[in-house]
Amino acid sequence: MRVARQERTADMTNVNLTGTSEEADAPREADQPHDSLVARFGADKPLKLDAGVELTPFQIAYKTYGKLNSQRSNVVLICHALTGDQHVASFHPVTKKAGWWETMVGPGRPIDTDRYFVICPNVVGACMGTTGPSSTDPKTAKPWGLDFPVITIHDMVRAQAMLLDHLGIESLFAVAGGSMGGMQVLQWAASYPARVFCALPIACATRHSAQNIAFHEVGRQAIMADPEWCGGRYLLEDTNPRRGLAVARMGAHITYLSDAALHRKFGRKFQDRANPTFSFDADFEVESYLRHQGISFVERFDANSYLYLTRAMDYFDLAADYDGVLAKAFKGTATRFCVVSFTSDWLFPTSESREIVHALNAASARVSFAEIVTDKGHDAFLLDEPELFAIVRGFLEGAGVARGLGAKS
Amino acid sequence: MRVARQERTADMTNVNLTGTSEEADAPREADQPHDSLVARFGADKPLKLDAGVELTPFQIAYKTYGKLNSQRSNVVLICHALTGDQHVASFHPVTKKAGWWETMVGPGRPIDTDRYFVICPNVVGACMGTTGPSSTDPKTAKPWGLDFPVITIHDMVRAQAMLLDHLGIESLFAVAGGSMGGMQVLQWAASYPARVFCALPIACATRHSAQNIAFHEVGRQAIMADPEWCGGRYLLEDTNPRRGLAVARMGAHITYLSDAALHRKFGRKFQDRANPTFSFDADFEVESYLRHQGISFVERFDANSYLYLTRAMDYFDLAADYDGVLAKAFKGTATRFCVVSFTSDWLFPTSESREIVHALNAASARVSFAEIVTDKGHDAFLLDEPELFAIVRGFLEGAGVARGLGAKS
Repeated sequence: MRVARQERTADMTNVNLTGTSEEADAPREADQPHDSLVARFGADKPLKLDAGVELTPFQIAYKTYGKLNSQRSNVVLICHALTGDQHVASFHPVTKKAGWWETMVGPGRPIDTDRYFVICPNVVGACMGTTGPSSTDPKTAKPWGLDFPVITIHDMVRAQAMLLDHLGIESLFAVAGGSMGGMQVLQWAASYPARVFCALPIACATRHSAQNIAFHEVGRQAIMADPEWCGGRYLLEDTNPRRGLAVARMGAHITYLSDAALHRKFGRKFQDRANPTFSFDADFEVESYLRHQGISFVERFDANSYLYLTRAMDYFDLAADYDGVLAKAFKGTATRFCVVSFTSDWLFPTSESREIVHALNAASARVSFAEIVTDKGHDAFLLDEPELFAIVRGFLEGAGVARGLGAKS
Repeated sequence: MRVARQERTADMTNVNLTGTSEEADAPREADQPHDSLVARFGADKPLKLDAGVELTPFQIAYKTYGKLNSQRSNVVLICHALTGDQHVASFHPVTKKAGWWETMVGPGRPIDTDRYFVICPNVVGACMGTTGPSSTDPKTAKPWGLDFPVITIHDMVRAQAMLLDHLGIESLFAVAGGSMGGMQVLQWAASYPARVFCALPIACATRHSAQNIAFHEVGRQAIMADPEWCGGRYLLEDTNPRRGLAVARMGAHITYLSDAALHRKFGRKFQDRANPTFSFDADFEVESYLRHQGISFVERFDANSYLYLTRAMDYFDLAADYDGVLAKAFKGTATRFCVVSFTSDWLFPTSESREIVHALNAASARVSFAEIVTDKGHDAFLLDEPELFAIVRGFLEGAGVARGLGAKS
């Protein structure tokens, strides 16, 4: 493959991007991501944001897997969810764990890197190398913090389109993602129909519900209530709103699972003991599990990014950009869609996916729809779900034939 | 009516119970509740707790409505929910609002105070006058804080039984309550079957689910993450974990409503504006509503009480005390039951009420069951639900005939 102007940053981790001597600590992942490619966009290529301002300069951190074919027709763009990142199918440099979708993406996997060239960018507003609130603002040589402009799902997708231009890739064979990633898939299909051959929006919706906005708001308030948040200036103050972010994560994590899954996994089992301690220790296994979720999340995620990305999801309302008529978003589209939902997902219930399908039908789009029976809740899209794997594999193989993709290269 | 040894405390609000000069502030509601009756239990009458310790001395704040009849056969005990209190059907001295169940309890209401003598005690562990963590421990002349023993639903009910003994009331015509109040109703029926003529457990369960424990744990962590919580010593430190408690309340409040109710009430409507502000202001009405819920809650509730009462709910598992067989809890009962659930209650879904009914059926108990169709979620038991009112009124009237209660006195 040939990819223009990309820079490997894996060996640059000790370079201070800001050029100031005030930054004594090691550079943040946000500025110099490990094990990632970075595309930089200068003053000539600003990112025009929905908020009415331009973000410039900015950078996009991304990973690629597989090989671009000579026709450049085998590109699969993976859009990550709220707390995901570019490390979709390889060792994560911060958590030291496997990529977040290794069951789905890789050699011989449903999104088969022996056949497809996979690109996974970190979204704008995140904290793993694409410009976000924890990135250093070159104008001030300080972290953006809350001076970073509020971004939207559309902004994330605009930035990704600029990345593709930058890489010389005209069109995508497929764009796929779950949850916030699914929102990006839908935005891609609406904004750039000619660039998307097929689209896989999984466990998502065309707009965030009042209940989901409410849960996000609780998480944001938990972060902002932490005195160590310091009005968003914690990187400058050398503090860290760890407790607030952990509480936000704990609350959100409940919404990613189902009542049934929690019951199956934990029920009312006590943690390492036979009887209650009559205390506020983590008596129940589910408490211990949640605390662990909160603590481990804080090690890898930036609190302000959590604010910005939840806000982007809240603002997402695809139909609103099309006179309130969702079908208009997909008018005349030639993209092939495969919409997937999960029976026990109460964050993005099947009814929301049906609305997508109805709109696509109204737009005479090619669409298949699968509701997968599982008790794993919203997180099912990240877990070992053989039916999901079979659906994705089959859909891509069928679309690949239509796209003229050959057998494994 | 004659009621033994009760003291009116409405006029005692400026008396310092502790007798020390260190407490410069006005006495807390926990020690000297406004507009309430208070029963005090000395060293001769300790409350024996499930935690294996004795609480002594302790006091119970309560309200009564209506008149006790000469046979003492018309007593209705109302058990309040997590954040409720004794002010069930009259002006609340702290919030300056109506009682929390005035639609249900009062003259001519379904629980008709022209017919029944209603007693509503504040539960042990709460903060409105019954002994709890914000009460002054007479042994130290300081607030209990986390030295207060962890209490259970059974402990609450034991204390209520002591209150009835204290008042010279042998048996209850009815015991009624929703949510945590419903748990107390079930415990009453199991522990004191001969004292309960009829029981109305509403929107509750015989055990707290893993998901519910998880939500409670997030709320507790939000409180404990607030530096002003000070390890539970905030009353001594003159701080107040307001932000943590507000976050806890916001998260819990979402679980009291349904997705449909939130959509109907708020949808994605913006607050006082036509367009998003691209900020972290409360752009959406639902955000503004939640923030208000959090802020107003802090004015009336004690953070440590929130920890203790959520813990009591978590520990509740009625079957566990009966070899894991729920029907044994009700073996041989003569109590008449009316179990009520709401279709959109996802905190205590109908399936949990069905388990109660199945156990009662297995115990050959008299039981009727109503699932009320509503989109109002768990909070429906507190709201204007004509079907609920009709069911409660009808059930009590029927039971009243069996009890030999006459027409309105």
